[in-house]
Amino acid sequence: MSVLPAALERLIAELKRLPGIGPKSARRIAFHLLAAPPERAASLGAAASSLHERISRCGVCGNFTEDQPCDLCRNPERRASVICVVEDASDIAVVEKARSFDGRYHVLAGSVFDAGGSPEDDPRVTALMKRVRSGTVAEVIVATNPTHAGEAAAAWIAMLLKPEGVRVTRIGIGVPLGSELAHADSTTMAEALQHRSTL
Amino acid sequence: MSVLPAALERLIAELKRLPGIGPKSARRIAFHLLAAPPERAASLGAAASSLHERISRCGVCGNFTEDQPCDLCRNPERRASVICVVEDASDIAVVEKARSFDGRYHVLAGSVFDAGGSPEDDPRVTALMKRVRSGTVAEVIVATNPTHAGEAAAAWIAMLLKPEGVRVTRIGIGVPLGSELAHADSTTMAEALQHRSTL
Repeated sequence: MSVLPAALERLIAELKRLPGIGPKSARRIAFHLLAAPPERAASLGAAASSLHERISRCGVCGNFTEDQPCDLCRNPERRASVICVVEDASDIAVVEKARSFDGRYHVLAGSVFDAGGSPEDDPRVTALMKRVRSGTVAEVIVATNPTHAGEAAAAWIAMLLKPEGVRVTRIGIGVPLGSELAHADSTTMAEALQHRSTL
Repeated sequence: MSVLPAALERLIAELKRLPGIGPKSARRIAFHLLAAPPERAASLGAAASSLHERISRCGVCGNFTEDQPCDLCRNPERRASVICVVEDASDIAVVEKARSFDGRYHVLAGSVFDAGGSPEDDPRVTALMKRVRSGTVAEVIVATNPTHAGEAAAAWIAMLLKPEGVRVTRIGIGVPLGSELAHADSTTMAEALQHRSTL
């Protein structure tokens, strides 16, 4: 016999499936909502339930959006000649926060190797090729993660796009600005050495 | 102009209000749900929305329940002569997990000092007094948290209940079993010394 009511167990089960939420956090959150005014749980419920109702992928860049194309793709103040390629839509906000990029984006939506096939058959890579071939693109900045998969994707994208006569660049990789070398792990340090530039 | 769609911002705002979830976790969870099949978000939404529909406080012990009184209060195999007092309904599961208590519970539902009034006016303390006065209770185990508020509540409860002729006990407080003294903070160590027992 479980000590907890079924509706509570059900919410805990749903919360546990979320990234970064373990059994203890899930329990704590569920009890918190139970002790809070019912409006709190209702409003979280409504927000989660309606999430997919109006949001879809931008037909151009793959960003999550309520309009087609998305705000970033429609913005006339952003240059259409530079495309920043990111693995996930959530990475767009990270790049935007740096306030130093005024071009467009292209979301790969996960690793191009996920499906097990060749990256050239990946629909998001194919869509990128198409955008580049439209002729208005001068540079593609590959901002995939500095992981094995991200680096491999970067290499493939460079190989596929270079014959199209477009400049393909990779974001700088190394020791984070403002951090101390003592805190950099060996891989980061190795990357920083390899990606050194002349002063 | 925000980079994120309104429905996504709304879910992030709701998630951020939950205990233990910061802005980064909220973002990560929201994007995770957006990338997952829509059923995931819908099912979390339904679980949160329906949380308060069937769950209420047990009229006897204050535990969260779908039935009145709760399973624990109705269970004939549990002794009605011993009541374990906890601060929150979620603490019941912690005590149950120890598998060494077969009595009933009484939930204070937060600190008895929260309202700023005197503990003897607290409705949950009043309800406890009433249960004790019903005559079937021989012992009240105070399992409030070993915090300032929890200790103060324990002292008050002992003071109020002792004149009723009931045995009032406090859970053991000290260094956790299986832990090393080196990891115990000074307050825990001091408590452990103070609560020493004769061998």
